[in-house]
Amino acid sequence: MAEILKIGVAGLGTVGAGTLRLLERHADRIAERAGRRLVVTAVSARDRRRDRGMDLSGVRWFQDATALAADPEVDVVVELIGGADGAAKALVEAAIARGKPVVTANKALLAIHGTALARAAEAAGVPLAFEAAVAGGIPIVKGLREGLAANALSRVYGILNGTCNYILSTMRREQREFGEVLAEAQRLGYAEADPSFDVDGIDAAHKLALLTATAFGTEVDFASVHVEGIRHVSALDIAYADELGFRIKLLGIARLTDHGIEQRVHPSMVPIGTPIAHVEGVFNAVVAEGDFVGRVVMEGRGAGAGPTASAVVADLIDVARRRSVPTFGRPAASLQKLVPAPIARHRGCYYVRLMVVDRPGVIADVTACLRDEDVSLESMLQRGRAPGEAVPVVLTTHETEEAGMRRALDRIAALGTVMEPPRMIRIEDL
Amino acid sequence: MAEILKIGVAGLGTVGAGTLRLLERHADRIAERAGRRLVVTAVSARDRRRDRGMDLSGVRWFQDATALAADPEVDVVVELIGGADGAAKALVEAAIARGKPVVTANKALLAIHGTALARAAEAAGVPLAFEAAVAGGIPIVKGLREGLAANALSRVYGILNGTCNYILSTMRREQREFGEVLAEAQRLGYAEADPSFDVDGIDAAHKLALLTATAFGTEVDFASVHVEGIRHVSALDIAYADELGFRIKLLGIARLTDHGIEQRVHPSMVPIGTPIAHVEGVFNAVVAEGDFVGRVVMEGRGAGAGPTASAVVADLIDVARRRSVPTFGRPAASLQKLVPAPIARHRGCYYVRLMVVDRPGVIADVTACLRDEDVSLESMLQRGRAPGEAVPVVLTTHETEEAGMRRALDRIAALGTVMEPPRMIRIEDL
Repeated sequence: MAEILKIGVAGLGTVGAGTLRLLERHADRIAERAGRRLVVTAVSARDRRRDRGMDLSGVRWFQDATALAADPEVDVVVELIGGADGAAKALVEAAIARGKPVVTANKALLAIHGTALARAAEAAGVPLAFEAAVAGGIPIVKGLREGLAANALSRVYGILNGTCNYILSTMRREQREFGEVLAEAQRLGYAEADPSFDVDGIDAAHKLALLTATAFGTEVDFASVHVEGIRHVSALDIAYADELGFRIKLLGIARLTDHGIEQRVHPSMVPIGTPIAHVEGVFNAVVAEGDFVGRVVMEGRGAGAGPTASAVVADLIDVARRRSVPTFGRPAASLQKLVPAPIARHRGCYYVRLMVVDRPGVIADVTACLRDEDVSLESMLQRGRAPGEAVPVVLTTHETEEAGMRRALDRIAALGTVMEPPRMIRIEDL
Repeated sequence: MAEILKIGVAGLGTVGAGTLRLLERHADRIAERAGRRLVVTAVSARDRRRDRGMDLSGVRWFQDATALAADPEVDVVVELIGGADGAAKALVEAAIARGKPVVTANKALLAIHGTALARAAEAAGVPLAFEAAVAGGIPIVKGLREGLAANALSRVYGILNGTCNYILSTMRREQREFGEVLAEAQRLGYAEADPSFDVDGIDAAHKLALLTATAFGTEVDFASVHVEGIRHVSALDIAYADELGFRIKLLGIARLTDHGIEQRVHPSMVPIGTPIAHVEGVFNAVVAEGDFVGRVVMEGRGAGAGPTASAVVADLIDVARRRSVPTFGRPAASLQKLVPAPIARHRGCYYVRLMVVDRPGVIADVTACLRDEDVSLESMLQRGRAPGEAVPVVLTTHETEEAGMRRALDRIAALGTVMEPPRMIRIEDL
């Protein structure tokens, strides 16, 4: 067996501790799969004294994460610090500069600096691996980059944030509102104290940007992702979705269009007959559509110590076997600049919920706004009567361009009989 | 870019032609992913004159497939002949003996000779890759062998035969019987003229044997797979399954138990709430359960020219990049002998349908048989009355051992009031 692979781990939070535990628990199995032993020789974390439930006495300790890159007892750096800049970026750059392979779970870092880091890694001839950054334990990066490598992909989409999926699943099952379920998720530890990264869609957008680059061979372009979170999804919309044959999911969608590549993260109406409609709770799922392979779906746990450690160690085994692929599948030097398709050019069907005063003529006014913008109605639903009071009216449209849809919604919002801002949710053709 | 990779393809049926088409259509994309160009330099097939819709004039042609292995213009051999022995086996052995990597879609060959071939490949230091042999375009072999490599797996199971899944899905949707739907599937080209390989579960068992070896690091042991096909599944059982909250699927299941490794292929009652209950038609799906990663599900097209070619070329790209892993994940020399858990020791819940004479006392006799073998009843369903005639009675049991269940069924079958052999379908705890 070849010499041991000496690993430096920066960041000993949940995932870092999980990675150390996995490397220890399955040391023999991993050695067999890797062709050599994987040994953690150095770690870096803020607080040395914290009890992490494991013996770190034989392991070198660095206050400053960047020092891991320089340590001659470290062959490969595992970056689990997080954050798009600061210590994480400094460490990854230092490791690459020293010719050391990097394994990271840091989606924010790669979403912002992925292209530059991939180029640096390629120039240095070292792998930069990030399976753990997207969809936790699901081997989706390997799946896209190697398993489906021969296909021209037309679309990649999925449920990329477990916190949002948990909240939406719970809202539906228990018919409760967003705020209430979020508070409970925070109590249970499924959502952060500051939940905005998750519920506003940023985390999903980071991951989507990485999937896009991997699927389409483009530079990572987080800035052009259209992002909407789930704060505005109401129990009422979820109930209507059910009635119309949909589930509401926060999807990340990357798609080739005539206008460039569309990257969108937003609540979506997902037809109940599709596989991802049934992905509930903290699970993630990613769907890839290739010209030869057809539709491939991968589902699993998108976060947590165990699943993320599983992905980190899979990358380490690849490093140990010197099994290397360009970071985003195609050589970094030839990654294409991404031409973003503007969201205004998006074509699709739409769900719209209005709260209108229940009196004659209102529907005529609303439908006139749609007609004036060439938006064709597919269905209309008004349930219950409350003369003179606000009642919900739900519309779905045929396929139309988003720009026109938005103009129609502006007209509708301006009607005196429409009491709240219209709620619009895109219907996905999956 | 490195020198070109010269490919010899044996077998130009649907998959062979699809592979050639894919290599040609996406030559540039594949070259980028592979780091070098992949060129088909030689082929072998029975009939040279058949029109395959492509120009093979510049390609060397061999009547005898084995000659591909000896051709100095062939770096890697793609075996798409099929069959557990004969030309396929001779070619693969010859290629390995000459130190040439092999990519194959041949599940029968590897199910029978996989251990020996993996050892020969390892001794020769060449990869033997078989992504296309299991679940078509789904990158499940790579997923298990690399993506989940760090996990101790406890169970791997799935829908491994698209023909059976198509037949069962259609039977349910159209409330029709097996024979009728099979005949239609044959007319549509979804089932072979001799359908026994598919409908009797052999094909699924071949694939399961390969998944087992990959998941558990054991020798391939097709002989110990317990196999039952779908010929006995009736529309009536499918309707009862629906009523009880199940779908009937032909599953292949490999599981670690206290008695060894269970390998079973048979119709199964799958709870409607699970992801694979919704896998319909010709799609395949595989579920793996790992101790760190949890449950991972992969779904896609299990057969056909495009999906299978996608898997073949993915393996070729790995070969081109010299990205190699032991055939079944762990070195062939250390594959463990598989200790098979006898099906008689299987523990689970059971669905049983009886056709009994509708008269007082029959149920008492049936339940006495179960009691005498310590089988505990979970539910009993008798719908409709037809005094003196045969009516269906459906039972489900609590968890029990298969040996006792079978003895109870023998007793029940011997009752004078039971008109047909009892139908038993295992309920899976997924």
